Amino acid sequence: MSPDPTSVTQLTPLLFLERSAAVFPDKEAIVYGDQRLDYRQFADAVTRMARALQASGIGPGDRVAFLMPNLPELLMAHFAVPLLGAILVAINIRLSAPEIEYILDHSLSSLLVADPTLLESLVDFKPPPAVKETIVLGDGFEEFLGRGSTEPLPWRVDDEHRPISINYTSGTTGRPKGVQYTHRGAYLNALAELIHSHHHAGSVYLWTLPMFHCNGWCTTWAITAIGGTNVCLRAVDPALVWDLIATEGVTHLNAAPTVLISLANHPSAQRFDRRFVVTTAGAPPSPTLIGQMSDLGAEVVHVYGLTETYGPYTVCEPQSGWEQGAERIKLMARQGVAYIGADPIRVVDEDMNDVARDGKTMGEVVMRGNNVMSGYYNDPEATARAFRGGWFHSGDLAVWHPDGYIELRDRQKDIIISGGENISTIEVEQAIASHPAVMECAVVAMPHDHWGERPKAFVVLKPGEQVEGGELIDHVRGRLAKFKAPDEVDIIEALPKTSTGKIQKYVLREQVWAGTEKRIN
Amino acid sequence: MSPDPTSVTQLTPLLFLERSAAVFPDKEAIVYGDQRLDYRQFADAVTRMARALQASGIGPGDRVAFLMPNLPELLMAHFAVPLLGAILVAINIRLSAPEIEYILDHSLSSLLVADPTLLESLVDFKPPPAVKETIVLGDGFEEFLGRGSTEPLPWRVDDEHRPISINYTSGTTGRPKGVQYTHRGAYLNALAELIHSHHHAGSVYLWTLPMFHCNGWCTTWAITAIGGTNVCLRAVDPALVWDLIATEGVTHLNAAPTVLISLANHPSAQRFDRRFVVTTAGAPPSPTLIGQMSDLGAEVVHVYGLTETYGPYTVCEPQSGWEQGAERIKLMARQGVAYIGADPIRVVDEDMNDVARDGKTMGEVVMRGNNVMSGYYNDPEATARAFRGGWFHSGDLAVWHPDGYIELRDRQKDIIISGGENISTIEVEQAIASHPAVMECAVVAMPHDHWGERPKAFVVLKPGEQVEGGELIDHVRGRLAKFKAPDEVDIIEALPKTSTGKIQKYVLREQVWAGTEKRIN
Repeated sequence: MSPDPTSVTQLTPLLFLERSAAVFPDKEAIVYGDQRLDYRQFADAVTRMARALQASGIGPGDRVAFLMPNLPELLMAHFAVPLLGAILVAINIRLSAPEIEYILDHSLSSLLVADPTLLESLVDFKPPPAVKETIVLGDGFEEFLGRGSTEPLPWRVDDEHRPISINYTSGTTGRPKGVQYTHRGAYLNALAELIHSHHHAGSVYLWTLPMFHCNGWCTTWAITAIGGTNVCLRAVDPALVWDLIATEGVTHLNAAPTVLISLANHPSAQRFDRRFVVTTAGAPPSPTLIGQMSDLGAEVVHVYGLTETYGPYTVCEPQSGWEQGAERIKLMARQGVAYIGADPIRVVDEDMNDVARDGKTMGEVVMRGNNVMSGYYNDPEATARAFRGGWFHSGDLAVWHPDGYIELRDRQKDIIISGGENISTIEVEQAIASHPAVMECAVVAMPHDHWGERPKAFVVLKPGEQVEGGELIDHVRGRLAKFKAPDEVDIIEALPKTSTGKIQKYVLREQVWAGTEKRIN
Repeated sequence: MSPDPTSVTQLTPLLFLERSAAVFPDKEAIVYGDQRLDYRQFADAVTRMARALQASGIGPGDRVAFLMPNLPELLMAHFAVPLLGAILVAINIRLSAPEIEYILDHSLSSLLVADPTLLESLVDFKPPPAVKETIVLGDGFEEFLGRGSTEPLPWRVDDEHRPISINYTSGTTGRPKGVQYTHRGAYLNALAELIHSHHHAGSVYLWTLPMFHCNGWCTTWAITAIGGTNVCLRAVDPALVWDLIATEGVTHLNAAPTVLISLANHPSAQRFDRRFVVTTAGAPPSPTLIGQMSDLGAEVVHVYGLTETYGPYTVCEPQSGWEQGAERIKLMARQGVAYIGADPIRVVDEDMNDVARDGKTMGEVVMRGNNVMSGYYNDPEATARAFRGGWFHSGDLAVWHPDGYIELRDRQKDIIISGGENISTIEVEQAIASHPAVMECAVVAMPHDHWGERPKAFVVLKPGEQVEGGELIDHVRGRLAKFKAPDEVDIIEALPKTSTGKIQKYVLREQVWAGTEKRIN
């Protein structure tokens, strides 16, 4: 049935800023150091940025890349770029120069806005030809803003199915893929975040989660929807985080367990006399961590998802029947059930049949619906592969419990998740293999108390060659983002292989993970 | 852009029950007296009802009418009817037999499910020919349920813009109009209710608001979305309400101010040691009432809307800058700002220009977007008239304050709102005029401490006729729902008229409302 324009408004997060600027004009929207913007100023700054982009040649459908930590300008970009109908590409700041260049080139981003400190730290960075201009925060950015005007633009889109952002993820091929979010998906997922993280108009949200990860799990848009306060910060320093929690009255934060471990074990850790919600994903929080955070008065919301699912897709909904104590914490460490707004999650065998809900049979986690990307940018083959059988294939292996909760056990994809960051094992293997002494190698995840997982390499050298593990680690660090280099390298005689010559990574994983129940952390 | 079915699920509240049945199968979904259903049983009962409707000849697009108080069966119908792609017509149980017959006839409802007590109380009720069958709760309903099966139906719709329900409202013409809600609108408005009424998975919601009013402001769907508990009740008896609040641990209820007044002034009124949210609409809550409810520990959420806006469209968002005390309560009594999910509300002059935001200039309140009906059923002319200029015309007159909050002052439409129920003055006038002694008459609202407003009639008799006001009141009570009969009748010599002979109702209103600032209550 054809929707009537008077009773159907196309869904877009732009509506959230329109509303909060009108309803909460004087309320604090953004805090960053001494900088404080209310919602009127936030909306004005967004309009100014959009008009400056427009004056710089950006129009509907163009890609605009941002490379910066959690600064106010990146939050503004989440509204300013879509306000023109353009598409935001927020790049992971931990990547190396070649990786960033690949993303800029693949997305054909016309413009790059970057933080000067970051730019300086990149070795031999050279934007590809598609990037017509690089604007650096500071004087350059001020000049850029001066190009436009403050003339209002409508907070509307003509079609909610249009893309709003592209988020690049490490894939199994080792090459980042551009995950496309739509205005509709961003709108619906932002509302779901509000509900599952128990946000309210009094929310003071601390930006410990990078905005370049799934647009901060759509929280970039959600906090604005509810009229909360965004506390920005350049880097997650535990002492600063505790200081901001105290002085700004923080009520909510999202973070990978790694970050929570740093916080819980920091000398400044303290309990406040207010409701404090911590939403965590990227790895299952350990019972110890859930216990520690609870002791600090924090309510831990455990969620799970991927870049392809706008961030979280599942939440471990607590049930009133769960006993307190160790049993509860174990139940809480499961990935859980689909979000409100997400289609039911499934765990399937290779023929797309549901596996038994026995807590034992493993299968692949598949998703679909409004909580799933519209596809990989400019990659119809990878999109078709990911959506085979009409469901998005997560590549994560899980068991399905009798109560319908899923629990991750392993990964089909050769991905290591370290401190919430994805590392493609294939990419690391290729970097190691580029060393002249290396014959072949295999990289697997090993469990790590702080980071969750870290890469470990098994290397077979060419006959007669001699090289230390440390030299190979340095070799990788010169080629990839430093966090991708393996922590350990075992030089061995031969890799375990199938009769057809395929490397049996699972044998190596079994060896590394001996004594643990799972194969991911 | 054409949506990909793997990344776009059509929005429908059916998804909420699918999820809660899977996530909270053992959690209490419905409580009614001794009857207790968990979410698994709720979903099963809905499937059974849908299958029984199907076996009784109901299919996609058919209208199914329900005439009953807030019983579990009516809540189930909010899912069972749409599960077949059929359209729910929940009829106001306070209407008279001819009014109900008109609605059944106009909606061409194929089936009527009714409460026996109600049916018996209706004088000379005879369903129109369109109604192929009337099923009465009790043995008849059990027989009806037995026709179907429990074979699952998919919790899906093929097009979110299809109608899910038709809610009849009294209109200015005196004839009820069928307000159509869509699956998409119901879904989005249910989420907005969750946010603005601060619902959570622990919500225990008491059904003081009739489900036949705007489908309970979409709360029929919202509580299921969040996995809360619905406490049903046949009638709003204050003693029972306080008893249920205590024994069932009620955390939320919605009610017109009239109902809240009865509750606040009842001897059982008490303060509980838990968060208790009361969402009110239908008339502005008085400062006294807001104060009384606050003293009882209740958080009052003041909202405003119409049948045409899925129930609430605005909320009076409290601002942190508002001082406690009398000033705050006065600010809280305003209708406020548009909901999250609603387009910005406007107050306009006759040329559709915004009026000055000075708190003085009156204009008409207009709305549009996802929080507005898709149109009047089978009434394209009334729809076009209501949507003239591309905005839905509420007929309510308001001032717009400098802070963007609207405050109702009068009504263009000849509607009286008494205890949350709409009364068409034209309809009452026609009933009075049908008395043989009456020459002409005019009905206006008069303020009433308990009901907010009540009808008052000014009557001119035919020459030589003599009749008491009480006889005219009885005359109306014999023709319309009893609550529509005027409380007072003034027999006068002549009605005030314009030079062209049009009755000047505003002159009568000025007289009735002398000494008050507003012309509605």
